[in-house]
Amino acid sequence: MSGNQDPVIILVEPQMGENIGMCARAMLNCGLTRLRLVNPRDGWPQDTARATAADADLVIDGAEVFSRLDEAVADCHRVFATTARDRSQTLPVMTAEVAAREMAAAAGTKGGVAVLFGPEASGLDGESIARADTLVRFPTNPAFSSLNLAQAVLLLGWEWRRVAGEELIIPAKEEATRDELEGFLNRLNETLDERGFFLTAEMKPHSVQSLRTLFSKAGATPQEIKLLHGVLTALARQDT
Amino acid sequence: MSGNQDPVIILVEPQMGENIGMCARAMLNCGLTRLRLVNPRDGWPQDTARATAADADLVIDGAEVFSRLDEAVADCHRVFATTARDRSQTLPVMTAEVAAREMAAAAGTKGGVAVLFGPEASGLDGESIARADTLVRFPTNPAFSSLNLAQAVLLLGWEWRRVAGEELIIPAKEEATRDELEGFLNRLNETLDERGFFLTAEMKPHSVQSLRTLFSKAGATPQEIKLLHGVLTALARQDT
Repeated sequence: MSGNQDPVIILVEPQMGENIGMCARAMLNCGLTRLRLVNPRDGWPQDTARATAADADLVIDGAEVFSRLDEAVADCHRVFATTARDRSQTLPVMTAEVAAREMAAAAGTKGGVAVLFGPEASGLDGESIARADTLVRFPTNPAFSSLNLAQAVLLLGWEWRRVAGEELIIPAKEEATRDELEGFLNRLNETLDERGFFLTAEMKPHSVQSLRTLFSKAGATPQEIKLLHGVLTALARQDT
Repeated sequence: MSGNQDPVIILVEPQMGENIGMCARAMLNCGLTRLRLVNPRDGWPQDTARATAADADLVIDGAEVFSRLDEAVADCHRVFATTARDRSQTLPVMTAEVAAREMAAAAGTKGGVAVLFGPEASGLDGESIARADTLVRFPTNPAFSSLNLAQAVLLLGWEWRRVAGEELIIPAKEEATRDELEGFLNRLNETLDERGFFLTAEMKPHSVQSLRTLFSKAGATPQEIKLLHGVLTALARQDT
């Protein structure tokens, strides 16, 4: 069950090396090996991470570091964001269990599934969440819901491990990569900018994020991205 | 779901205060509150335990300390022992998931369910296991199976919570009505028609259907439909 189709665990701006190491250990406990770090606070590699990884060297040595989240998810087809609270009114929310089934189904076809975990103190911010197409929640005790980072990674891995062994019959769809999606979004935003859509500079990031969220949710196929490019070309045509 | 029928978590000769605190946090994450300590190496209470418990004071303050395991399990009807390896040829062995179901069934009738966790370095010894009636195993990666103490407690609590509460409800998102969606799609298609997007009459129904599928998948909210109308207006503007 291990291989390139397994979910990539992405720690966004992790603060403590100890936690990165404990995440690596929890991942390998569950048979997951693909770790990516976005802008770790104390740099990389870190001795503290190796110490708490308890011999999960395979994961530590293979960790990939990125300076930006969009680069870390560029080759992914599905991006799940773990949050303690609902920070979005628009993305679908799944329990870890249901999300793990979706991940297994997606990995079974094209691969490229990523799961985002935010910094220890604050969790994922809105900009990071806008890179995702699905939110994942852990149905912990509502009166005491905040999980340690490594424990959130463990529960996700545990649910993945549970379903990855099963035969799944959920038909998976072929989705475009994040790069393909971003290519369309960039063109859309540039065109909108030319047309004066963004009334104020302050408003622009919010609108850009809303559009990214909307099109992320759609889970467009490569053909649909092509269709969207065609629609944009037609709409923006000035010579009619 | 919390109360006197909940399983008692018994840490047998725990070595590090940090781990006791992380166990308390993991317990409360899962709605478990009853912690017993048998002969903790560094005594009790411990500041390090309170620090890593991250405000799970309820569990820390309520922890009961015993000098012997037989006293700690004296009021229990069922005793489960967690082990990484099979150390007994005679006790039944259950996965955490199956054991949690047994615990829920036992708690519902006679109450008094305990789960034993051994010292960090060595796990439960034969004498401790002999106090149990059932072994619990966590089906982790066979090549890297050893769980951190708090993570073993978390997985047991997670499985307990799953069966005890079945709180796996996916909150519904607020989606636009089909009417609102069709209103946007009609406007989009009309505008595309004006711009000569549909190259042939035969091709049009297929393209229209593709666009409907794409925007249906997105499950847009009413606010997002408004946003799309704004985008369409901006893109189709001819007076730039």
